Amino acid sequence: MIHSLFGIKYPIIQAGMIWCSGWKLASAVSNSGGLGLIGAGSMYPEVLEEHIRKCKAATNKPFGVNVPLLYPQTDELIQIILRENVPIIFTSAGNPAKYSGLLKSNGRKVVHVIANQKFALKAAEAGVDAIVAEGFEAGGHNGIEETTTMTLIPLIKQCVNIPVIAAGGIATGRQMLAALALGADGVQIGSRFVTATESSAHEAFKQAVIAAGDGATMLSMKQLIPVRLLKNAFYDQVRAAELAGADPDMLKEILGRARAKKGMFEGELKEGELEIGQVAALISEEKAAAEIITDLLTEFHEARKKLSQEQYNF
Amino acid sequence: MIHSLFGIKYPIIQAGMIWCSGWKLASAVSNSGGLGLIGAGSMYPEVLEEHIRKCKAATNKPFGVNVPLLYPQTDELIQIILRENVPIIFTSAGNPAKYSGLLKSNGRKVVHVIANQKFALKAAEAGVDAIVAEGFEAGGHNGIEETTTMTLIPLIKQCVNIPVIAAGGIATGRQMLAALALGADGVQIGSRFVTATESSAHEAFKQAVIAAGDGATMLSMKQLIPVRLLKNAFYDQVRAAELAGADPDMLKEILGRARAKKGMFEGELKEGELEIGQVAALISEEKAAAEIITDLLTEFHEARKKLSQEQYNF
Repeated sequence: MIHSLFGIKYPIIQAGMIWCSGWKLASAVSNSGGLGLIGAGSMYPEVLEEHIRKCKAATNKPFGVNVPLLYPQTDELIQIILRENVPIIFTSAGNPAKYSGLLKSNGRKVVHVIANQKFALKAAEAGVDAIVAEGFEAGGHNGIEETTTMTLIPLIKQCVNIPVIAAGGIATGRQMLAALALGADGVQIGSRFVTATESSAHEAFKQAVIAAGDGATMLSMKQLIPVRLLKNAFYDQVRAAELAGADPDMLKEILGRARAKKGMFEGELKEGELEIGQVAALISEEKAAAEIITDLLTEFHEARKKLSQEQYNF
Repeated sequence: MIHSLFGIKYPIIQAGMIWCSGWKLASAVSNSGGLGLIGAGSMYPEVLEEHIRKCKAATNKPFGVNVPLLYPQTDELIQIILRENVPIIFTSAGNPAKYSGLLKSNGRKVVHVIANQKFALKAAEAGVDAIVAEGFEAGGHNGIEETTTMTLIPLIKQCVNIPVIAAGGIATGRQMLAALALGADGVQIGSRFVTATESSAHEAFKQAVIAAGDGATMLSMKQLIPVRLLKNAFYDQVRAAELAGADPDMLKEILGRARAKKGMFEGELKEGELEIGQVAALISEEKAAAEIITDLLTEFHEARKKLSQEQYNF
């Protein structure tokens, strides 16, 4: 199980999400026995430094930073992470080999996020300590193969020997149990923590996630970079362009700049980019991170106990 | 658990699939303790009648017929099913209310296949005995919401009180355990049985499924009727048309007639329509239906035992 690798109590990782997971959420999750991650993807270097310092002041438990490797300032972010002694680094959206050696030689735990076997093998070769395998149902950026968590976890367990953390489609204790039944060594949870009290998501975005039902999200902008979005006016615009045969440049123009900030951080629900997973349909209220973890564990143990009952002895 | 409803030994249903599941496969599955289904979707009335008679001769265990409700000869198929005393009927792709009353008043068990909450509620209102909830990862025709099994099962369990059978992404015992962990009362398995010795799929199609890896399938023809296909020359043609903004009529023209038969039954791998689920990537050999069920149960019980171990006592 993944918790022994990180020195945490439960095999639950809070995903490092742009505009939602700053030091408040990360420290609250880590203080509750999970692993909190600061999402550096939306942060300038000085902002990340501030969040790391505040997180260290708010918890004496392990926490980490998620760094998407696609931004020009990645070198700077990694230097700050090293200097500030962040013990755990999750990388995503790029080649993990670029930083894994440096981070490992400095005694850090390194985890890389993937969505197919090819990149899982690359990450394992790069020497990472664990992998997050993220299914099609996950919010935000996603793989082009569209492999769902149900299929992806066994596929990844088949090809690597390092721990595999399941992501995508996990917001409840039953879903956590299902992920572990598939062979995962832990779970990464995003959407459910977007609605946590300590999340920095705008209150209007949190309420939109809570209101979301069956079919409220869709994988979008596949010709540019696939991203799962809550359907809104912006999504409709992208969809219409896609149906008319839009190419990547046209999608890039529609996307424009700072739409994710506008949507998730500033609460502009119509024109903003609202990244969230399919499990939004199962999220029904805003709760503190500690309560979310308690809920997850309670349902997990209940469902696990049920699976051990006689009716399953066929 | 669903097996008590059907009077079978294991909560495993073999999906009724066009061109793959005739009387040989259905009777082999039923004789092995699962529920075998004859897929009537690809059968003329007289062909269905013959398959039912041969199935009855080959097994004294319960079996069923899957009837997609979108063909003009549905009335005739239902009459044959009634006359031949088929005890269990799975309906799909249409309004279950049209036949559920008639079938139920004749003492039959009726199950309807859905992919969202709205149709689950409609099926429950129509008085069906159970629901198959089919996720995005499933092969063949699929829902427009693209909800994966991981999210769909809890969503459907939330809204109906009848048994829910999980479908999509299930080819192994671990995946079966995951489905039951999510709350499902049984599983329906398609792709794995496509490659069964007794399946009427063409040998070339079976070998293509076995050879399929990560990312080998894709949900296609969404503007017409979403269907998950193994990628081939036909898929490439559809994809190119879709990227160029093809409308439903254009897709219908590309599809033409009898492509599914050509691909799955006649083994025309390039130009045929090859319906299969994402789990094709996890299927590695052709086996008899009885062996497939033994494999499923062995892995299921091993994984279930593992979940009861101390490492999960966090």
